[in-house]
Amino acid sequence: MTLAVRYLSARTLDTAPAATATPGPGEVEVAPAFVGICGTDLHIFHGDMDARVQTPAVLGHEMSGRIVSVGDGVEGWAPGDAVTVMPLRWDNTCPACQAGNQHICHNLDFIGIDSPGAMQQRWTVPASTLVRLPGSVPLDHAALVEPTAVAVHDVDRAAVRDGEKVVVVGGGPVGILIALVARNAGADVRVIELSPHRRLLAEDLGLATWDPSAADVTALVGEWTGNAGADVAFEVSGAAGGVDTAVDVLGVRGRLCLVAIHPRPREINLHRFFWRELTLVGARLYDRADFEQAVALVADGTVPAAKLISKVVPLTEAPAAFEALEGGGNVMKILVDCTTETQGADA
Amino acid sequence: MTLAVRYLSARTLDTAPAATATPGPGEVEVAPAFVGICGTDLHIFHGDMDARVQTPAVLGHEMSGRIVSVGDGVEGWAPGDAVTVMPLRWDNTCPACQAGNQHICHNLDFIGIDSPGAMQQRWTVPASTLVRLPGSVPLDHAALVEPTAVAVHDVDRAAVRDGEKVVVVGGGPVGILIALVARNAGADVRVIELSPHRRLLAEDLGLATWDPSAADVTALVGEWTGNAGADVAFEVSGAAGGVDTAVDVLGVRGRLCLVAIHPRPREINLHRFFWRELTLVGARLYDRADFEQAVALVADGTVPAAKLISKVVPLTEAPAAFEALEGGGNVMKILVDCTTETQGADA
Repeated sequence: MTLAVRYLSARTLDTAPAATATPGPGEVEVAPAFVGICGTDLHIFHGDMDARVQTPAVLGHEMSGRIVSVGDGVEGWAPGDAVTVMPLRWDNTCPACQAGNQHICHNLDFIGIDSPGAMQQRWTVPASTLVRLPGSVPLDHAALVEPTAVAVHDVDRAAVRDGEKVVVVGGGPVGILIALVARNAGADVRVIELSPHRRLLAEDLGLATWDPSAADVTALVGEWTGNAGADVAFEVSGAAGGVDTAVDVLGVRGRLCLVAIHPRPREINLHRFFWRELTLVGARLYDRADFEQAVALVADGTVPAAKLISKVVPLTEAPAAFEALEGGGNVMKILVDCTTETQGADA
Repeated sequence: MTLAVRYLSARTLDTAPAATATPGPGEVEVAPAFVGICGTDLHIFHGDMDARVQTPAVLGHEMSGRIVSVGDGVEGWAPGDAVTVMPLRWDNTCPACQAGNQHICHNLDFIGIDSPGAMQQRWTVPASTLVRLPGSVPLDHAALVEPTAVAVHDVDRAAVRDGEKVVVVGGGPVGILIALVARNAGADVRVIELSPHRRLLAEDLGLATWDPSAADVTALVGEWTGNAGADVAFEVSGAAGGVDTAVDVLGVRGRLCLVAIHPRPREINLHRFFWRELTLVGARLYDRADFEQAVALVADGTVPAAKLISKVVPLTEAPAAFEALEGGGNVMKILVDCTTETQGADA
């Protein structure tokens, strides 16, 4: 019997034995190694997604691991292979899939939300979701591939070009990853973040930051850009004020990439969209090309994974780690080590 | 002495003699023939733009006319030439101009708002604003070139492609022109409009229409598109409900082109922008290429100008025409005939 981290109801997680499913045709059984705790996992933990999640729900979709066994008809994969999973299953028949946008399938199964996730010791997934990890990438680092794929997708949606001036509003894990990917694309980047801890971490990565509580960010952008305004802004804060800032800092024909989820309608300064011919671009998830680029960016150190991983906890301490993350503040990314059940003991 | 239509204060226009300016170097003196009354002119009339407009203000920026005289250094133009004017003057030094977006110059002079407009019998403008009219285009039709240039710009900003399904929310003059230009680009178009009169006129132009007070437009778009949603929506209504409709009808990766001016912030369903990876594109004015394409579309009948001109009034009746337009409803475009001072009399 193997263990799983399960969401039971708002603010209640446990770890419990989970039945493992023998991989069917086209499936593989994976032993997850490290699984990151994501903002979406916290939303589920808060009970905000109870309408969508079927309890008990095994969480987790930012993962690395090794293949344990493969089902019939699976080619190219073998036990022991290091992998990450692009946690999407689509129907290939809806209008979005037909148009080539499978990641926005009208009936998308996001594995880890809509079906069981990776925070367990055995996990059966379609072989089509596997993405190969080079042997050079430590498995703990590889747990950052999924959020990096989000960042790659966002930077691509915003069409960031070499030499552009980019403002990232919100310096949490995804904001920092966007800043790193945009910098790698040749952009000059500023990260706007309230938390001193997160600003320090960003600065340690060589990213310039601004504290919006201490400075007029729009004025700073004006000075920085010779009054032209920024080329691109990423809204990663989820706050109403973050949206306003992202609009205000943009210059003529600037692009605002909407990354954070805003569950309720927000007031937007549409006059500014007219006056400066701004563009707002929604971004959701990633496709396989984004995922493969993310593997490369983690592998080559463009994403300095070790610096972004604040803490690694054993499986049975995942519930406590969720509680700790509630405080927000002084952590970046927490990983759950699925190979270790309790502190100081191997599984 | 020649006559001009002047805005004095909220809801007060008059016609009065106006001094004419001899064209300086690089300028031309034009005798306006026909001048359309635009939504922006109505905003000024309502007093909504008093902070920007210097009174007494000569209104009008949708025009046709003939050159009367040319100033020093003006080449390629001669008295008698039929022209329309692209009513923009930019500084060529601001960051927007430097980036090639002169029409969004940080210090743009929109002639007819920020400086004297065309509703007068003599009008002096920079030769750089002139756009040549082919002899085949009647001057009353040519007064529709400017709003057609707006439509060309909007359709270009939305990147409408052959075969796409396009929803135009709002069937006033600009909405109808957008529908015509989009149809000419190969799009399948639906116009959403409350006014029965405007729907009738659109239908007469071969445009399919929907009455949003009588039908669930989102459901109709679902049927029309096989549940895919529309590719492009133009928000031309200026109403909060129009914005909601334009968001709701769009399919995955749909583009919303924001045409109407929304002076105050609007609540926007940003979750939908995330979920469907929508794009919002602001559009303002036009550039010279848009204007030249607009001349061609009026000339070749793609824009059936005669059907869009509801009424032509002599100069001294322009104030009454503004009053009548307040009612909205049963007119499309009203032109002021600057060559005729009063009904039944030539100037």
